[in-house]
Amino acid sequence: MLDVCLLGTAGMVPLRNRFLTSFYAVSDGHAVLTDCGEGTQVAIASAGVRAKIIDTILLTHFHADHVGGLAGLLLSMGNAGRTEDVTIVGPPGLAKILRCLLVVAAPPFRILAFETDGSDDDVFHAGSIQIRPFPVNHVVPCLGWQLTLPRPGRFDADRARALDIPLSAWKILQGGGEVKVNDRIIRSDMVMGPPRRGLKVVYSTDSRPTDSMAAFGRDADLMVLEGIYGDEGKIEKAETWGHMTFPEAAEVAKKAGARELWLTHFSQALDDPDACLPNASAIFPNTRVGKDGMKKSLRFTD
Amino acid sequence: MLDVCLLGTAGMVPLRNRFLTSFYAVSDGHAVLTDCGEGTQVAIASAGVRAKIIDTILLTHFHADHVGGLAGLLLSMGNAGRTEDVTIVGPPGLAKILRCLLVVAAPPFRILAFETDGSDDDVFHAGSIQIRPFPVNHVVPCLGWQLTLPRPGRFDADRARALDIPLSAWKILQGGGEVKVNDRIIRSDMVMGPPRRGLKVVYSTDSRPTDSMAAFGRDADLMVLEGIYGDEGKIEKAETWGHMTFPEAAEVAKKAGARELWLTHFSQALDDPDACLPNASAIFPNTRVGKDGMKKSLRFTD
Repeated sequence: MLDVCLLGTAGMVPLRNRFLTSFYAVSDGHAVLTDCGEGTQVAIASAGVRAKIIDTILLTHFHADHVGGLAGLLLSMGNAGRTEDVTIVGPPGLAKILRCLLVVAAPPFRILAFETDGSDDDVFHAGSIQIRPFPVNHVVPCLGWQLTLPRPGRFDADRARALDIPLSAWKILQGGGEVKVNDRIIRSDMVMGPPRRGLKVVYSTDSRPTDSMAAFGRDADLMVLEGIYGDEGKIEKAETWGHMTFPEAAEVAKKAGARELWLTHFSQALDDPDACLPNASAIFPNTRVGKDGMKKSLRFTD
Repeated sequence: MLDVCLLGTAGMVPLRNRFLTSFYAVSDGHAVLTDCGEGTQVAIASAGVRAKIIDTILLTHFHADHVGGLAGLLLSMGNAGRTEDVTIVGPPGLAKILRCLLVVAAPPFRILAFETDGSDDDVFHAGSIQIRPFPVNHVVPCLGWQLTLPRPGRFDADRARALDIPLSAWKILQGGGEVKVNDRIIRSDMVMGPPRRGLKVVYSTDSRPTDSMAAFGRDADLMVLEGIYGDEGKIEKAETWGHMTFPEAAEVAKKAGARELWLTHFSQALDDPDACLPNASAIFPNTRVGKDGMKKSLRFTD
């Protein structure tokens, strides 16, 4: 099970009734936070999710509205008692940015910083959640993020018994390990069926539409994409500033064959994003306009 | 007239219902902001005061809860159309801190940074507001701030007429300038009475009680002081971390002979600061427990 929460929906400027855009995903006590603008620690508290269990923080890029809350969040995680390492992944330049932002904060845990341009098939982890960055197209280097929760194949108990594998070793094989039985190595794939469909979520904001979004979002359970402007009329501004409109985000979700789309990162001039929903749902019907604190529990389907 | 607003009342951690402590003062379209933690730009919007007219930003010290919102605020001031210089004053180390915090923000105006340890009789300005720093006593170098709005003496119209000063020159003399009349230099003090009582506000947070607070707060119209803990029972923690309790803040206001005291910078463990008000008002009766957005218009008294 992967529980997700859209912590905020504002783009560029935090508003009285909108936190800056960031996204929280948790599975089995290990959480991933994507983007951390000013106020994200308050958004986390408001949404009732836990800051202390954030193992990995992903940054799309280094504009203030996506990183300005990092020092405060890390301090609060320390105050909440976290002492385990925290991994932070972002575009090239991350180490310098962290050195700078953390000049006002010294959290009581190690920070492991990884820079990536999204082109190297990097995989990061938070517990069982696998995290893959992909390059997108903003006015500065920017990454989209794919989170997956893999699901192993079915365990073939009959085959395990036939191979004389003791019950005590079943769990090791189910977890992908191998055991030695009667001097013979038994690999996991000898008793497990092919991997089943897991869960997939893609988050991308501050980008023009890209093929990478559709590729990494292929058959995703959920895509969380920016829709900074509600309609096609603002396409020129979107092009100039490297953003997406509602219809453009819907086209991406459609191309990906995603199951659901949440829109976020609304311009402060977009007072009523709901009113623009038809501009997206006409293209991709299962679109929802993001709200601060919007949650969903994604479960394996059979 | 000096309008003041306590933008937030939280200490260390921004809460769902408490912005971090910061203070806004404005006179005649020129504003001063003191401290700028994460979320201060939202607190400014919530309080309905204007970010664009902030000429001068004062920082008590460089802990994240007092400076973490600087990048976001400066960007928003730029978005609001500000192009005039902004002055930022803080303890030694300010330039480095700004270089670091601004790595994620490039506002469209110049920033003039002044470092001071509060010992040099420095005076800064925002319009007619005069700003004086004074050293206080925290676990890192920290400043308190005195804001005054001076009031010139009474203009003696009979004397001006007797000196043959044309009406058109009165304003120059009233403003402190000088004019030449019949080849004779007329100075302002020749037609103005002695300066009258102006307005004085002192803001100090994150410090043990100091003599400097009482000295700079002498006869102040308002003192805004931290009361991180509500009662004397926490005195040991206050001493360890360089803070003040409610009773200690009240003693400072009493010693200064101030007219009014607002308490702020409450610990997140202090759920109901109002319940602790008697601990301060028993010592200094005109104490108010700070609320986010609390305002007052200070006017010259005659």
